[in-house]
This record gives sequence, structure tokens and C-alpha cells, in this order.
Amino acid sequence: MPTSTWNRHHVLSLADFTTAEYDTVLQTAASFQEVLSRRTKKVPSLQGQVVANLFFEPSTRTRSSFELAAKRLSADTLNFAAATSSMTKGETILDTAKTYLAMGTDIMVIRHREAGVPQAIAQEMDRLGVRVSVLNAGDGQHEHPSQALLDLFTICTLIDPNHPHLELLKGKKIAIVGDILHSRVARSNIWSLTASGAQVHLAAPPTLLPKLFAEYVCEEKAESRQLFLHWQLEPALQDADFVMTLRLQKERMTAHLLPSLREYHQLFGITRTKLQLCKSNVKVLHPGPVNRGVEISSDLMDDPEFSLIQSQVTSGIAIRMALLYLLGSGKVSGI
Amino acid sequence: MPTSTWNRHHVLSLADFTTAEYDTVLQTAASFQEVLSRRTKKVPSLQGQVVANLFFEPSTRTRSSFELAAKRLSADTLNFAAATSSMTKGETILDTAKTYLAMGTDIMVIRHREAGVPQAIAQEMDRLGVRVSVLNAGDGQHEHPSQALLDLFTICTLIDPNHPHLELLKGKKIAIVGDILHSRVARSNIWSLTASGAQVHLAAPPTLLPKLFAEYVCEEKAESRQLFLHWQLEPALQDADFVMTLRLQKERMTAHLLPSLREYHQLFGITRTKLQLCKSNVKVLHPGPVNRGVEISSDLMDDPEFSLIQSQVTSGIAIRMALLYLLGSGKVSGI
Amino acid sequence: MPTSTWNRHHVLSLADFTTAEYDTVLQTAASFQEVLSRRTKKVPSLQGQVVANLFFEPSTRTRSSFELAAKRLSADTLNFAAATSSMTKGETILDTAKTYLAMGTDIMVIRHREAGVPQAIAQEMDRLGVRVSVLNAGDGQHEHPSQALLDLFTICTLIDPNHPHLELLKGKKIAIVGDILHSRVARSNIWSLTASGAQVHLAAPPTLLPKLFAEYVCEEKAESRQLFLHWQLEPALQDADFVMTLRLQKERMTAHLLPSLREYHQLFGITRTKLQLCKSNVKVLHPGPVNRGVEISSDLMDDPEFSLIQSQVTSGIAIRMALLYLLGSGKVSGI
Repeated sequence: MPTSTWNRHHVLSLADFTTAEYDTVLQTAASFQEVLSRRTKKVPSLQGQVVANLFFEPSTRTRSSFELAAKRLSADTLNFAAATSSMTKGETILDTAKTYLAMGTDIMVIRHREAGVPQAIAQEMDRLGVRVSVLNAGDGQHEHPSQALLDLFTICTLIDPNHPHLELLKGKKIAIVGDILHSRVARSNIWSLTASGAQVHLAAPPTLLPKLFAEYVCEEKAESRQLFLHWQLEPALQDADFVMTLRLQKERMTAHLLPSLREYHQLFGITRTKLQLCKSNVKVLHPGPVNRGVEISSDLMDDPEFSLIQSQVTSGIAIRMALLYLLGSGKVSGI
Repeated sequence: MPTSTWNRHHVLSLADFTTAEYDTVLQTAASFQEVLSRRTKKVPSLQGQVVANLFFEPSTRTRSSFELAAKRLSADTLNFAAATSSMTKGETILDTAKTYLAMGTDIMVIRHREAGVPQAIAQEMDRLGVRVSVLNAGDGQHEHPSQALLDLFTICTLIDPNHPHLELLKGKKIAIVGDILHSRVARSNIWSLTASGAQVHLAAPPTLLPKLFAEYVCEEKAESRQLFLHWQLEPALQDADFVMTLRLQKERMTAHLLPSLREYHQLFGITRTKLQLCKSNVKVLHPGPVNRGVEISSDLMDDPEFSLIQSQVTSGIAIRMALLYLLGSGKVSGI
Repeated sequence: MPTSTWNRHHVLSLADFTTAEYDTVLQTAASFQEVLSRRTKKVPSLQGQVVANLFFEPSTRTRSSFELAAKRLSADTLNFAAATSSMTKGETILDTAKTYLAMGTDIMVIRHREAGVPQAIAQEMDRLGVRVSVLNAGDGQHEHPSQALLDLFTICTLIDPNHPHLELLKGKKIAIVGDILHSRVARSNIWSLTASGAQVHLAAPPTLLPKLFAEYVCEEKAESRQLFLHWQLEPALQDADFVMTLRLQKERMTAHLLPSLREYHQLFGITRTKLQLCKSNVKVLHPGPVNRGVEISSDLMDDPEFSLIQSQVTSGIAIRMALLYLLGSGKVSGI
């Protein structure tokens, strides 16, 4: 597998990912996708290594995906869930991470409701001079790199199953619709999709896509990158190749950021009718779990002609195997 | 192992199990019972396959039994518990099942407090044309097939350890005592035991064995099957070969279906004295966990001369290995 | 590995451990420490065996340590947590243990908030004549043998990494500071350290080190053993080689056994200044999780010159591998 271009020790953010790195991840995931189609879907790559899932914020779905990816690489897994842990006993997050380090963990997969926690842990590991890798599985409203990479992989393999790579998206129009402001998924996707040369169109009500946010994000991008913002859905959908919908946290409504769910669905929910604005072979993505009839109409979600939602979950295993493999085997060559 | 007679893709209910299927399960379990007596109690049968335990209703005991059975077949396991899951995030049960499908699950073991959920998931999987198998690990008050099969295996191996098969029970008298109305274990056992040609005698207070239920269940049976109902314990115990006690949900009392636990024990609790009505070599079963001194007297439960309770737990591993193996290897030959 | 001196079937307490047994555990752990430095940190010693972690009192840290130790010996693991179990359904603790026995468990690792539970389970297993081993992972305020053994291993390997053995501690001065009265860690450490011939000095406020306790503990010891008690910190620290701090349960304060945390830290918290009373190469231990700034000052905890806290966690894996291995392979030779 093409690991020669891989020198990264942690995966915390996609902000500084290079094209070569994206392509290495995509091609490694494609190799594992092939493994997953075999009868015995296991490889011995990480035998004897330990992957610890430190989920300070609970998530059965993402934790299961990382756990299965690790098991298919023959790694041993440890699951830590904040609720039943000594966090309640007054231990700091860094102390918890250092405990799992001292037990012999090779890769830490970390989710936390505060932005920056995986970075802080990675910095501490580097300061200690240890070779443990940190993988950000979602930190607050900051980033969720493995989700954006699996979205990228899902789209690229649709275009070219045998050779998924970043450039395939050049010139494609991709709409990201929904609660942009609070979404770590959107943030990571903005990095990867603009890096690919796609035209990225964000669409949300003003409360979920403030002007200030727009300016901040746009300024960060190189001028060659193409990012557009809309407070209506239609211009974002017009001739779009892909529509990424985001999960709506129902709590937002109580904070008066949203009208009723019904009104939200009317204005920004994706339906068959609205998809007629897009290219005829448009596909719809959603990171899950979906609020049926809110972000997306229920029948559309189940329609394999339009929905990539199941492919995204499958891609998640291949992408997480790829990331764990690249971090794990990087470690080996370093020893 | 004798899998030629096995064409079943899911195990949801025992209602339509054939004699050949019962015997295939019993003989496969007997082979695994032999494996479990070896020093290394593991076989590579399901290596690389994924068994997901989707327990929407929590149960440590049954989940541990399925988990260990899967591990002894060298499968990878994923555990899902409703409490910590995205069920609270508004995802439907079918969406959860489809997520685990998309991750690459081969066999789903499903427990839910509503009757029919495993069936609904199995139907959806069939509609999608995928080869994932569904195993009902208890759905509401409907069925709990693996429990009835392990009860059957426990009794049959007692009679003939080397060649357990359904016909061994022909003519035996088996009493099922307790909360018949609410028991999925009783329902599954009624199917398997009447299929064997045993005389099945149900005994419970009228509130837990209503006349209507009796008529409904009896009508479903072929006339050749022998099912008898009693509102007193004694006629059920008279000359019985086996007594199956059921777990009493203490919540039933608050619903005024029961007098005090003390009075219940006096009328329907199994004690040494009451066992004198039975055959001299009578054995007692209970699916666990037992309310000591309610369904069964505490000393009787611990008496290996009468109690098969520990054997039932051991049989549970062998039966669940057999079911996973038959579903899993069926899948393989189909690929 | 040197197992010829090992005849113990359970590890419940260190009270009757012999020097030969201590040395066997230490040397076996040293062998595994070497395995842990390899690329593939796994050995097939317990393949096909089942280690069940029955944690009636929750502890993510200790459970993870035992789970990883078992996995590195290639055992299959089952985790039981009281909260989600049928304990709430009225099953007794012995019934739960017997259920895991009947499933085929080879080694039970048991934690319970009541003293004596692991012993009671071990007695029941012996009464039943089964070969399952019980390992006490902390019972009430009684003992926590694996913690004391990992402390011992941490200290001994510091003195002689290649050949850790009990006699290395002869004549060393070791202070144990903090909530002695409620600490199962302190009780187990008192047994092992006095057995080594070290001078053991306990230091705590009188409410946490009552005179009666002192007399009781001292009387139990052979006169050759050296155990000293102090109600001030200074005489315990004077020329100490090692300082073991204990976790302070904050609940103690509400029971009026303690002044404020601030005052406790002033009187009994370990700081750089106070360490100047000790030998210049003194090392500090803590079983974790640490209340930073209470039992020990935050900067001292992170200073690798003084703190052995991370080494203790690493030693925990090696010691638990050693204990599981000795219990597991003892079982094999017996079959």
C-alpha cells in the first residue's frame, strides 16, 4: 500500500492535509474496501497493537465503526466511556489519556464535546516523546476528519471505484445544507472539498450560517478555492452534483435559532421536488443518524437511486481501517 | 456437521421449525459441547465474520452468552446497548439495523421489548436482498427461540448425551409453571415441546393463564399435539418427567395480577414436597435469573439431583454456537 | 517461566503469600514486561480460555488493565458491569458467578464494594469442585492484591530491572500516607512490604488511622516485621526511600473525618518541599486516579524524576498478565 507519502503521526484536522495525503488515504481505503469484499474480512496488519476508543462524548455508531475497523486489522481494542469512568472521580482528561498510554495503547481515538481536546492530548504525547498516535473522532464544533474523509471516499469511489483520488472532484458542485454553524462535519468537509477543487456551496438559515462565520471561513481559504454561501436553498442546489445534508440538533430550536421542525423541513429539507434543481444524477449524503422528515424526506433517504447514506457507513469502515493502518504502520517503521 | 438439512436464513420463531431442523440444531450443539470440553475451546468457523448484538432491551446474561458463543467460533463481536445509543437521537430501529448492516455485520442478534421487531428487521434485510441473518434473542412476549432450544438440548442430552434428538421426548410429561401469559420463553417452549410429541401441561393462576389465551394457543396446535392447561399446580406435576419454572416479573403484582410473592410461592412455587407428585427422577428447569424462594425454593435450586439450571446455562453456549454456525455457514455456501 | 513454586488456585489476599510466591509473581511479570517491549505484544498462553471481569463496583481503569492483560495472553474476555445487569432483577451475587461459571469461564476477576465477596465466590467454586480461579480486584476496604503487587513490581524493577525479587526491599524505608483506614490498597501493601523486610511507616490524621486499627494491624504481624504509625507526616518521610500516597475519597469530608481539602493538602499532601526530608533519590507512588493538589502537588505528579505513577500503570499490565498466567496455567496442568 502507498504509505511512502505518509509522515503524519496524528490525524486531528484536515486543515493542513496535502493532496498527496488525501490520495494516500483514499487509495489505502480502496485496498481495504477490496479486503472487505472477501470471505475473511480480516488482515493481520495491526496484530498486537492496541487501539483505545476514548469517547468522552458517547457515540455508539462512531465507536462501533472504529472498533470494527480496528478488529479487522487484528488490533486489540479497549473502550472507554466517560459515563462509567473515573472522570467523575476528579481525574483530568490528560491523566486519563496518560493512563491509557502507560497501559500500552498505540492509537487513541478520541471524541469530546469540547473543541481542541484531541489536539491537547496529541501535544502532551509529543511533549512526552512517546510514539502513540491520536485520531480525532469529533471534537466539539471543530472537526471530524474521519467523517469528511469517508464522505470524500464515498463520492470519489462513485466516480472511479478502482482509483479514487482527490482530483476527481475538480469542478463538481457540492452543496452542504443545514446547521453549518454547529457542525464539525461541515468544517472538516469544507477543508477537503475545497482542497479538491470542487465548488462548495453552503446553504442554511442566517442563524445557522452567520455572516461573521462566512467571512472567517472564506478568509482562511486560498483564493483559488471556491466557497460560496447562501441563505436560501435553491441557489446551492442549482445544478449540484452532490448534496450533503447535516444532522439537525433539536436542541437548537429551544435556543430560538430555528422555527419549527416543519418549517425547517419546508425551507431546507431535501425532497424529490427540490432535487429537480440539481443535476439529474445527483446524490445525497448525510452523516447519520437522520431525523427522518426533517433534514431529508423519509422516502428519499431510502431510495438507492439518490441516497449514499448506506455507502457512507460502509466507507466509514474502509476509511477508518486506512487511517488506523497508516498511523499504526508509520509507528512500526519508526521503531 | 449435519448442515445439509439447514436452509433457514433467520431464526425468529420456532412456530414452523421442522423435526429435521430441531435435530440439526441439537446435533450441531452436541458437536460444540464436545469442543467445549477440550482445553482450547475455540474453532475457526466464523473467522472474519461479524456478529452484532443489538440489545434494544438490556440483558447482560443473554448478551454474554451470545458474545462468548460468537468468540468461540472466532467471530468478531460488536455490542450495541440501547441506553447509550443514538436511539435517543431519534433514529428508527430499522435505521440502526441498516447502519450495522452497512458496517458489514453478518449476523444480527436482536432483543427488543416489543414483539415483532426481529421479524421486521429480517423482512427489511430480505427486501434489500442482503445476506445478513437475524437471530431473535427475545422479542416482547412473543418468542425466545434460543432459550427454548437450549432447554430442549438440556433435556435431550440428559436422556441421550451422544445423540440428542427430538423424538427422545415422545410421551414424556413436561409441566410449564408460572407466568405463562407474559412469557416469551413459554411460547417458544410450547412450540418445541409439542413438536416433540411430549405431553405439555401448563399451570398458572387464571390471571397469568387466561382462558382466551388457552383456546388461542390450543387451536393453533395440530390435534396430534398434546397441550393441557391447569389453574392448579398439582395435576400438572402428577407423574411429570420435567418441570419448567418461569421467571416471575415482580411488576406483575403491582398490576394486581398476583397476590403476595409468599402466597404465589405457596400455590405455584416448586419445592421438594411438591416434587413428590412427579416421577422420582424428575428434573427442574428455570431460564434464570431466579427469584429464590418465589418460583422455586432456594435449596431445591442448588440441588444437583433435581436442578438443571446450571446445565441450561452451559447448553446456552453450545446452542448459540450451533445457531450462529448454521446461519453463518449457510451464508458462506451461498456466496 | 518459574511456575513450579506456584500452587495457588485463587488470589484473594496477600496475607498468606510466601516469599517464593512473591518472587514467582515478580519474575513472571518481568518476563511479560519483556514481551511488552516487543513489536507484537501478544502471547498465546491463554488461547481459548475465558476471563470474566465481574465488576459489581464499576472501575474503568482497573477493568481496562485486566481486560488488556487478558487479551495480550490471547484469552477471550467477558465484561459484566453491575449497573446494566440482572442484579437489579433480584439475582444473588453467587448466582451471577455461577452463571458465568456455567458459561465456561476459567478465571473470574471480581470487584465489589463489600469486603469478602471474592472470598465467598471462591469458597463456593471450591465447594462445587470446579477449577475456576477467582482473582480479587478490590473488595470493600479489605484488599486489592494486584495493586499492591504492581506497586511492589514497580519498586523492585527500579532497583533491579532484570531480577526483581522481594529481598531487594530489605531495610528500605517506605512511607504510606493518607486515608489508611478506608484503603484496601494500603492493607494489601502492608502485607507485601512488611513481608519484604522493609520498614513500613503509616502516616495519617488520627481520624483516618485510629489507634485501634493500629493495634489490630500491628498485632497481626510477626515481631520481625517492622510497622510504624504516625499522626504526623514528617517522621514518616524522614529518610524514606519511597512514599506511597493513597487516594482520598472526597466523601470522607462530609462524614467530618477531614478538615478542608486545602488543610489536608497542607498537612499530608506531598510536595517538593516536604520530599526534602526523604532520601535524595526518593520516589513517589499513587494508585490513581489522583486528586491533583490534594494527595500530591500537581507539578510533582508530572515530574518523572520523582513520580512513578506512570510506571505503576505499565506495571499493572505485566503483573495482571503474570497473575492470569499463573492461575490459568496452573489450571491446565491440573486437567
